[in-house]
Amino acid sequence: MQAVYNIAEICARHGITDVVLSPGSRSAPLTLAFARHPELTVRVVPDERAAAFIGLGIAQAQRRAVALVCTSGTAGLNYAPAVAEAFFQQIPLVIFTADRPPEWIDQLDGQTIRQHNLYGAHAKGAFEFPVETSHPDAKWYSARIINEAINLAQAAPAGPVQVNVPLREPLYPNAGEEIRYDEDVKIIREYSDPLFVKKGNSNLLAEINSANRILVVAGQRPLDESLAAVPVFAAKSNATVVADVISNVNIPAITNQDIFLAGLSETKQQELQPDLLITFGQSLISKSLKLFLRKLKPARHWHIQAQGQAPDTFRTLTEIIRMEPHDFFQYVAGCDQKLVNTQLLNWKEASSKASEFLTKFAVAEGSRFNEFVVFRRITVELQRNTALHLANSMAVRYANILGIPQGKQIEVFANRGTSGIDGCTSTAVGAALATPQRPVVLLTGDVAFFYDRNAFWHNYSTPNLRVVLFNNHGGGIFRIIDGPRQQPELEEFFETRQTLTAENTAKDFNLRYFPVSSFEELEAALPVFFAAETGAAILEVFTDSKTNAAFFEQYRSAVKAAF
Amino acid sequence: MQAVYNIAEICARHGITDVVLSPGSRSAPLTLAFARHPELTVRVVPDERAAAFIGLGIAQAQRRAVALVCTSGTAGLNYAPAVAEAFFQQIPLVIFTADRPPEWIDQLDGQTIRQHNLYGAHAKGAFEFPVETSHPDAKWYSARIINEAINLAQAAPAGPVQVNVPLREPLYPNAGEEIRYDEDVKIIREYSDPLFVKKGNSNLLAEINSANRILVVAGQRPLDESLAAVPVFAAKSNATVVADVISNVNIPAITNQDIFLAGLSETKQQELQPDLLITFGQSLISKSLKLFLRKLKPARHWHIQAQGQAPDTFRTLTEIIRMEPHDFFQYVAGCDQKLVNTQLLNWKEASSKASEFLTKFAVAEGSRFNEFVVFRRITVELQRNTALHLANSMAVRYANILGIPQGKQIEVFANRGTSGIDGCTSTAVGAALATPQRPVVLLTGDVAFFYDRNAFWHNYSTPNLRVVLFNNHGGGIFRIIDGPRQQPELEEFFETRQTLTAENTAKDFNLRYFPVSSFEELEAALPVFFAAETGAAILEVFTDSKTNAAFFEQYRSAVKAAF
Repeated sequence: MQAVYNIAEICARHGITDVVLSPGSRSAPLTLAFARHPELTVRVVPDERAAAFIGLGIAQAQRRAVALVCTSGTAGLNYAPAVAEAFFQQIPLVIFTADRPPEWIDQLDGQTIRQHNLYGAHAKGAFEFPVETSHPDAKWYSARIINEAINLAQAAPAGPVQVNVPLREPLYPNAGEEIRYDEDVKIIREYSDPLFVKKGNSNLLAEINSANRILVVAGQRPLDESLAAVPVFAAKSNATVVADVISNVNIPAITNQDIFLAGLSETKQQELQPDLLITFGQSLISKSLKLFLRKLKPARHWHIQAQGQAPDTFRTLTEIIRMEPHDFFQYVAGCDQKLVNTQLLNWKEASSKASEFLTKFAVAEGSRFNEFVVFRRITVELQRNTALHLANSMAVRYANILGIPQGKQIEVFANRGTSGIDGCTSTAVGAALATPQRPVVLLTGDVAFFYDRNAFWHNYSTPNLRVVLFNNHGGGIFRIIDGPRQQPELEEFFETRQTLTAENTAKDFNLRYFPVSSFEELEAALPVFFAAETGAAILEVFTDSKTNAAFFEQYRSAVKAAF
Repeated sequence: MQAVYNIAEICARHGITDVVLSPGSRSAPLTLAFARHPELTVRVVPDERAAAFIGLGIAQAQRRAVALVCTSGTAGLNYAPAVAEAFFQQIPLVIFTADRPPEWIDQLDGQTIRQHNLYGAHAKGAFEFPVETSHPDAKWYSARIINEAINLAQAAPAGPVQVNVPLREPLYPNAGEEIRYDEDVKIIREYSDPLFVKKGNSNLLAEINSANRILVVAGQRPLDESLAAVPVFAAKSNATVVADVISNVNIPAITNQDIFLAGLSETKQQELQPDLLITFGQSLISKSLKLFLRKLKPARHWHIQAQGQAPDTFRTLTEIIRMEPHDFFQYVAGCDQKLVNTQLLNWKEASSKASEFLTKFAVAEGSRFNEFVVFRRITVELQRNTALHLANSMAVRYANILGIPQGKQIEVFANRGTSGIDGCTSTAVGAALATPQRPVVLLTGDVAFFYDRNAFWHNYSTPNLRVVLFNNHGGGIFRIIDGPRQQPELEEFFETRQTLTAENTAKDFNLRYFPVSSFEELEAALPVFFAAETGAAILEVFTDSKTNAAFFEQYRSAVKAAF
């Protein structure tokens, strides 16, 4: 029940002072958690309909959120009229409805209704507390959603949110047993006033100054030229800036972190650990970076995001700052206050070493024809201002490791909202139709390509589109990730072995077709393939998935040896 | 992952033979479970849109359910067109969508969408597989919902159902590790053809004959005179019939099981264990009976219910028989086949002993004025044909222990759909308005009564209504259940101590008012209170919750000593 007891602590740390509670049995752990908390005023009102309106009255008067606690069954439904009133009057209520565990719903046990999302469109959100909290992920989750619920209730426009808390027996501690609240309970604060940094009443600048090692990480974003303040801030504060391959930030930044983070020793990794992490943008391709930050957690993590739900990708989030990234960095870079950051992280050194390593490693010389080398070769050919579409999952992963040439204003796109393979080609076709003057290049694998070949099945032409299809006749990614490659079912059930080539597809849709199976053929094809007069075309690169996997394994070993 | 592997086994046991699978990483445990199952034909189709339509085609041709398996993210959304087609064409598909665990939703991890109820109104149901299955309840739940999903897909009108399966890493077994399927995996079969019993192609009659000890249990139902076949069947088969206090079955049956089941020794309890349990009706008040059956499980459990979702109240369900109870019992009682049941359970003996015990125990003689004795006294006065409304929770629990006089055609009502206290008085008022010629008596506690006193706030009169209000100034039930009574917060946060009496409420609504605080006052009041000319009235029985609790404790000790 520790995670349940911590609910009261998280409420108190967020400044909630008043709780209105209606008695019940299923809600006992919540009752005890709130009743015994030294900083909370808990009032008991038996009629839940009245209790909720009383809570609303307190919140209205105090202008801050009030917590409501009720037991399972129709108790929570009696809150509904006050919840609707709070929703339309924009009054923050955080409603904890105790529930039976999910397995007992509809099994004719007493006081068991369907409590998930009980208030429907009359609550700003409905959260489901995990029924088991022993797994570390579940522990994190349980605290995180309480923070999210409180922040959501208070964010403008304020309103009611429900946290449904399913509880298994035993519900009561032993007689005399003490209830403790974790001191290091996870707290995520949301600074929702976009001007609060400038008001001078925040201590964020002081915190930047007191941070010893600052890391800035940019995730997926559309191309953005307005971030010039980031390197200024970085220079002033000695912060290190890492940009994911799909971040399009167009500022000097480390982009090859996946190469060196995977290979570093524990001690070396610790030298790179930040104590303040500042992030903006959406998802990251860089798995090594995710794993690194989840393990070597910064003490503070600010996520800069003007609107919408903020993710806790590394399980480190402590502050959500509701500003546009360029506003935030302009302010912190331009402020009068001197930024003193004592310790530069060793990321740059590792990054240049990684660049050198890669330049040496990724040359065709002596190696068999493989995707890894071909991929790098092709990106070198990309023209200025190309819209580069990377299909899931192999193409985008290669790009993450091998990098995209800088300084050519190449904008990178990838369907990383959900990371599906289902529409990568269609998305690139859409882009080609929308920007007919711009070169659009799609780098894709065979599974993604054939899945979506009807992207071409229409009557529009896309002379600016080039598709580079890496055909290894299957989901080669499964051959290089641990787990599936050890299973006897690898070929039949994971790799999606398939024998198609794009030749007939090219014929069907009148696309120029360039099949290549060797470095020589590749070099011969590239100039024609990319020439403007060629028109829409497919360059099909045939490789063998076992050769690719072997080459990738060599690469991994070389990384390990080099760092 | 054992619970996940068992999914394939449950599918096979339900007669599913064909699986269409699309490769993915998150779905690996499902892939392996299905791929390695010796009785299943698993086909791999990479494009999920095609995979689902291929599954539909197989199901269409074979006229039985097909399982679909896909990975997390948009994979499942590509099933959507085929799912909609299957829904309107009434073709059974059981769709397993692998998912990330709930804590990673919206955290910008790859291939993570909001998969719960993915097909909305185009699936017959959406089930959420538990993310942790180590708790025994979760284990039971995980198997139960797979059975429910398959049964639901196949029940007329057939159609698609989704089972969302959130999976935490590690997803792959170690190389060479075998996958096992539990042999005793839970199977619930649904016989949805209401005539199948009569068709002679079922072996239910043979199973009745081979069962050694049969127990029939009736749960909540409206008054039903059509169940005369139950005692005939019982006599023929030596079955024991237990009727819950709210079952209204109006047949000879044991009703005082809560008295003796709680007190019996382990050995004695084992003598009462059935090997075939036959149930019908909705919920049961009798907690001892629930606990008894959950512990001493029958080998088979048939639940007789013509329509709707069948509950698994005791976690013992093995067959759902889609017939009306009276049809079922008429058939099994009237069939030519001789029913031979060798062993009569010892329930009747225990039941008569319990009756004697109660008669001796529940007399006022020498005891202080308490609810327990008063409650029994009042039920004796109930007139023929009374509609007896029992409020939650104390009144209905007392009735369960103390019983309702037989042979007076008393119909029992209680809001046990959700067991709320919120509308018990209003429900009784509604009944009094609807049946003005019938005596309507509500037995209630003070929390339920004052919660809902606006039941009287309208302009209709209910001269046939009598309210017996047991006022102990609080939720006395918390004083007699273990857990809360050991907490220092008992009085303030659990009992709902309150000081109201009904006197002013009676004045407000022009109800005759009879306050009683002793056996003498009670005896003096009863004849006037129940007299027809009195009109709507409240009999308020004042007792002390500590005296009640002490008396109840005496009762519990006496039960323990007597059995």
